[in-house]
Amino acid sequence: MLLRSGILTASDGEAVALENATGTSGVVLVCEHASAVLPAAAGDLGLSADALSSHIAWDPGALAIARRLSTALDGVLVHQRFSRLIYDCNRPPESPAAMPEKSEIYEIPGNRDLAPAERYARTAALYIPFHDRVSAELSRIAGEGRKPVVVTIHTFTPVYFGKPREVEIGILHDTDSRLADAMLEAAAAGGPYRVERNSPYGPEDGVTHTLRLHALPLGLANVMIEVRNDLVRDDAGVEAVSAYLADLISGALERVA
Amino acid sequence: MLLRSGILTASDGEAVALENATGTSGVVLVCEHASAVLPAAAGDLGLSADALSSHIAWDPGALAIARRLSTALDGVLVHQRFSRLIYDCNRPPESPAAMPEKSEIYEIPGNRDLAPAERYARTAALYIPFHDRVSAELSRIAGEGRKPVVVTIHTFTPVYFGKPREVEIGILHDTDSRLADAMLEAAAAGGPYRVERNSPYGPEDGVTHTLRLHALPLGLANVMIEVRNDLVRDDAGVEAVSAYLADLISGALERVA
Repeated sequence: MLLRSGILTASDGEAVALENATGTSGVVLVCEHASAVLPAAAGDLGLSADALSSHIAWDPGALAIARRLSTALDGVLVHQRFSRLIYDCNRPPESPAAMPEKSEIYEIPGNRDLAPAERYARTAALYIPFHDRVSAELSRIAGEGRKPVVVTIHTFTPVYFGKPREVEIGILHDTDSRLADAMLEAAAAGGPYRVERNSPYGPEDGVTHTLRLHALPLGLANVMIEVRNDLVRDDAGVEAVSAYLADLISGALERVA
Repeated sequence: MLLRSGILTASDGEAVALENATGTSGVVLVCEHASAVLPAAAGDLGLSADALSSHIAWDPGALAIARRLSTALDGVLVHQRFSRLIYDCNRPPESPAAMPEKSEIYEIPGNRDLAPAERYARTAALYIPFHDRVSAELSRIAGEGRKPVVVTIHTFTPVYFGKPREVEIGILHDTDSRLADAMLEAAAAGGPYRVERNSPYGPEDGVTHTLRLHALPLGLANVMIEVRNDLVRDDAGVEAVSAYLADLISGALERVA
């Protein structure tokens, strides 16, 4: 009775959203940090309105990019409808970062000393259904005789702990770098953005959980994309970045697949 | 596609069993370590037949006691149908003991360096459904206007790391000791067994996870019972211990409820 029902109530709706379900390319776009929304029962976690709308709550612009890529690449899109402050779906339940007590400069009072029942409820309500949905899509695609591809979409803040970041687009990978290599090779040939490998984060920061969960065990082509969020603050920016990434991904997939 | 389906296949059946579902007392008996059975897909985890049938795989006798108590106390019983070697349902996913690499003197090769996908699959297949079922029963009982009570049943080995244990029955509790206190008080008045508080384990060993998950947040009366497994090697032993415990619990519940 201390269950997921305590986290999500009827008015919150489902934890996971699936879009462009009829996409036929085999690409599964994943957006773990699509939303800054908190479930009604969560209150404000003791955070200010500024913090609740900041990059600690979500990846601003990531869902907009993922939606354009979903259309451009004809791939399905799975995104989490609630903030990573409640559960960061790019972290396993055993990670302290799954329900962080601190994020960058912000303490998160509502995540301090979480009781086992609360950790369980969040895991059951947000993490398990999210990755079940990703997994189900990958299964379905493979079952239909196509090659599933995992592409996760993130954004990062231009200033972190007070330090500006020069990189504009990060192409991240874990132990399987095939798709990332092909994208980086094309990006190195020239283009409008500063593109770097495993930047501003890399697998050593624990950010490749979704890739490790879904792609690596099955040898699926995969990549994690990080876009600096000041580039996608308006539709024109989203459109430009998405068009660039769509070309990069589709070109790379032709060489890798 | 790396999902729970990879852990449990159709021939394995469900992870969780519910017995005496019409029990009306409000008591929910929980047996996390009821079974030594491994899912077919798990193989032998690299363990010998001896290890696979030993106390590291299950709590021998615990399910037999729990079934008698379920009948005697008219309570429902929830038990896990698979070995704790695959997932120890009395541990949260963030605990290294949930999928242990070592248990007492045994290394468990099949649990070494588990990939995130495997940890996820086990958590989703075994832990979440188990505690969902316990939670659903507690909810149902409360919804029917009765007071739910959580009683978890375990057994322990008479010799651990080569050292004999004198205690015969342990009455364990976490921060809410009401039911345990009442049982210990009655036990201290005399009886056939050596009964001790928080022995041979206690909350500091992380063994009260189920109590902390389900009972403490709601203030439900609760207790964890540990029986030395040499006492329940035959039906007569099970019968004697179960009859003793049924009296102890029902008497204590009258004073606590």
